[in-house]
Amino acid sequence: MTPEEFRTQGKALVDWIADYWETIEERPVLSQVEPGWVRSQLPEHPPEQGEPFEAMLADVDRAIMPGITHWQHPGFHAYFNSGGSAPSVLGDLLSSGLGVQGMLWATSPAATELETLVLDWLAELLSLPAAFRSDSTGGGVIQDSASSATLVALLAARERAGDDSNAHGVRQGESGLVVYASEHAHSSIEKAVRIAGFGTDFLRSIPTDQEHRMRPDALAEAMAADAAAGLVPTIVVASVGTTSTTAIDPVRAIAEVAAEHDAWVHVDAALAGTAALVPEHRWIHDGLELVDSYVVNPHKWMLTTFDASAFWVADRAPLIGALSVLPEYLRNAASESGAVIDYRDWQIPLGRRFRALKLWFVIRSFGAEGLRDMVRRHLDLTDRFDGWVRGSDSYMITAPTTVNLVCFRHVGGEGESRRVMEAVNAGGEAYLNHTVVGGEFMVRVSIGGERTEQRHIDRLCQLLDELA
Amino acid sequence: MTPEEFRTQGKALVDWIADYWETIEERPVLSQVEPGWVRSQLPEHPPEQGEPFEAMLADVDRAIMPGITHWQHPGFHAYFNSGGSAPSVLGDLLSSGLGVQGMLWATSPAATELETLVLDWLAELLSLPAAFRSDSTGGGVIQDSASSATLVALLAARERAGDDSNAHGVRQGESGLVVYASEHAHSSIEKAVRIAGFGTDFLRSIPTDQEHRMRPDALAEAMAADAAAGLVPTIVVASVGTTSTTAIDPVRAIAEVAAEHDAWVHVDAALAGTAALVPEHRWIHDGLELVDSYVVNPHKWMLTTFDASAFWVADRAPLIGALSVLPEYLRNAASESGAVIDYRDWQIPLGRRFRALKLWFVIRSFGAEGLRDMVRRHLDLTDRFDGWVRGSDSYMITAPTTVNLVCFRHVGGEGESRRVMEAVNAGGEAYLNHTVVGGEFMVRVSIGGERTEQRHIDRLCQLLDELA
Repeated sequence: MTPEEFRTQGKALVDWIADYWETIEERPVLSQVEPGWVRSQLPEHPPEQGEPFEAMLADVDRAIMPGITHWQHPGFHAYFNSGGSAPSVLGDLLSSGLGVQGMLWATSPAATELETLVLDWLAELLSLPAAFRSDSTGGGVIQDSASSATLVALLAARERAGDDSNAHGVRQGESGLVVYASEHAHSSIEKAVRIAGFGTDFLRSIPTDQEHRMRPDALAEAMAADAAAGLVPTIVVASVGTTSTTAIDPVRAIAEVAAEHDAWVHVDAALAGTAALVPEHRWIHDGLELVDSYVVNPHKWMLTTFDASAFWVADRAPLIGALSVLPEYLRNAASESGAVIDYRDWQIPLGRRFRALKLWFVIRSFGAEGLRDMVRRHLDLTDRFDGWVRGSDSYMITAPTTVNLVCFRHVGGEGESRRVMEAVNAGGEAYLNHTVVGGEFMVRVSIGGERTEQRHIDRLCQLLDELA
Repeated sequence: MTPEEFRTQGKALVDWIADYWETIEERPVLSQVEPGWVRSQLPEHPPEQGEPFEAMLADVDRAIMPGITHWQHPGFHAYFNSGGSAPSVLGDLLSSGLGVQGMLWATSPAATELETLVLDWLAELLSLPAAFRSDSTGGGVIQDSASSATLVALLAARERAGDDSNAHGVRQGESGLVVYASEHAHSSIEKAVRIAGFGTDFLRSIPTDQEHRMRPDALAEAMAADAAAGLVPTIVVASVGTTSTTAIDPVRAIAEVAAEHDAWVHVDAALAGTAALVPEHRWIHDGLELVDSYVVNPHKWMLTTFDASAFWVADRAPLIGALSVLPEYLRNAASESGAVIDYRDWQIPLGRRFRALKLWFVIRSFGAEGLRDMVRRHLDLTDRFDGWVRGSDSYMITAPTTVNLVCFRHVGGEGESRRVMEAVNAGGEAYLNHTVVGGEFMVRVSIGGERTEQRHIDRLCQLLDELA
């Protein structure tokens, strides 16, 4: 493909994407294909000769699009929403076009310096503690996902706990290192505990209160029991917005308990952290100045296309200690001067994309005001839906609505709730999913799509009424 | 940004990228900025109001581009090249525009099924063993990088070695699990050994022969000694193309040694694996039917923009056993039917981009023939440069040229070699880096850029002559 063909086909693709966004509502949110259908539409063997781009785009329409679940659809309310605003897509395109590796400062200084700047900007917008800023002891970095951010937090905590895990492996047995999280913490915490070699025998699932928040008294008890037994309480993961119900763990009380054991505190605010863009919701971050690391995903509720997970540490030394390996072929004068950041030492992979561009474009395109407006609009829509459920005779709220997620069920219980959810999903206008908390089946409605308007929420209420 | 604005600005950005590619040779390959320069050009605080896209693109030109090291420049010969062909950039743009999450089959069936298909295509193009195909016991998955692929290989091997590391942590001490790699293996192996909690005390650095290849006899000795001591030889990482010199470890002999201990064999062919697109270079994969996992990076030498690392396993069960955690909110009928792949269980993060699109576009745009032509063109250019060094009085080859990397030095030794390398890099026409192997300083010239032609190699020879 020559640069001239790229101009032609690139512009055609830009139009294709704009057409897609403009007509997305006409498509069923949830793909209706059966397993194997997409593959059955495509040749089993790669082509010997090159094909024109038009043929590929035609196949996208014919064979790929029926197999797409439309995360950008205004009726997408499953899981948590995933960002994808136009400026973020353009930032990502620029990143692909430049094609640079930002593993070291030297391999493209702009990729590192813009990332540091944009994460300082975001720390300011979210009113994060001063220690997280790059001019302090800590700093921010873009990870691919909160899963990876949680994993590196565990590794940094392991490093700070001493005993040189990098050399000797994770200490287990009678003096083992222990991880704590609420019983409703995200599955990525268990996954990270496995990956990092702690083992789930050393993961304590802390009970929650009636609003599904970690109980600091139960945490204190568990940590004290472990310490008394000779184990080492190493890290507590607090969830600011659990996945099932967006319960907000009490960060301050948790951090105070953890401090008694010198344990690392990591805050997983992957979805809910974005709410702190508006001052009236900053209560979710109460106590954040006491914690060691924090993650929020702009690729969820902050209009940024996947992947862009923003991770900060209050002290970068244990993070770099855990992750830095320096072979000769990566040595360079800038790194050795100590004057630059090499983000390869802040993450699992060596290679890294120039992801700061899309976050920079998003913040500049919307401005702080535009981002706050977006959050307030979604919070208002969430209130509207929450109010509708509360006023309904057929449905009931099943967990406190803290940010932009409503959990509810049919008054008839699981069978009825599941029937309604499946009917909504089959209808194509909206996509909901479910969870089970404390044995109770509940339907989740996440409201964070850029295109979701009041009329979509009202239509969802109407649908639920009809199906009741 | 409205869809209409996206059309306008997207097309302007497509032109910007095409202009960049067409004029890339006019720029110095290696960024010349000092630490802090890029940040000093940008406001310290985020804007309160949104800004027009034109302002952002103007800032890219003014403040970002001077801080870019041009990985797509025809004179980029440092590290290994990084792909970025036009079709791959368009595939990535489509992925951003669709903005779907492929964590489960159900969350966009096309994302999973196209990935499985494209990795089967690639297995065919590289002539990989049948067990790696999805219709066998194994299958392929796209990881962000070879670092992550190696980490999941270690986790799968840990799982297969038994003793339930997921629950109990990695077994250490007198019956610990041991990892083997050559002394020239990539730094990501040490990093993965640390992350996965083995500890570098349980990493054996196996000596190499005069051509920097792992010595199977030394591996056999190390494994036997460990086994005799009660340790468990768990995984051997063979490098098909070491980072310093692209030495090709003897995979067959290594696998035969490993088999005596039931150890997992992982092949890291991140760069060099692409050479197997051409039959005359398939010798690098001799013995691959005996190994358990394999990784090659299309984002290196296969024209695909970062990130796209292709990873295969011969048996998917231990991989999924190591990485699957199933919370209620991810349960769905398709997953429970067992008829689909959920790629979240094949990788570290939960979320995942639709990366198969770019690889599909690359294979279809170039065709098998076009990909082979590209490899042969680079191998020819490498031969040309290798031959020039051999014919020079001032320079000498320092390691065997196996694929598309030439290692050489000035006959005067390290000081002269470093002086020449730094002068080339300062000149802006080419960018080289160095390594040290067996105490010998050598300059590396990687030849895998899409735009690198004979005239660029000839000019590099001329420059080196002038600087000699």
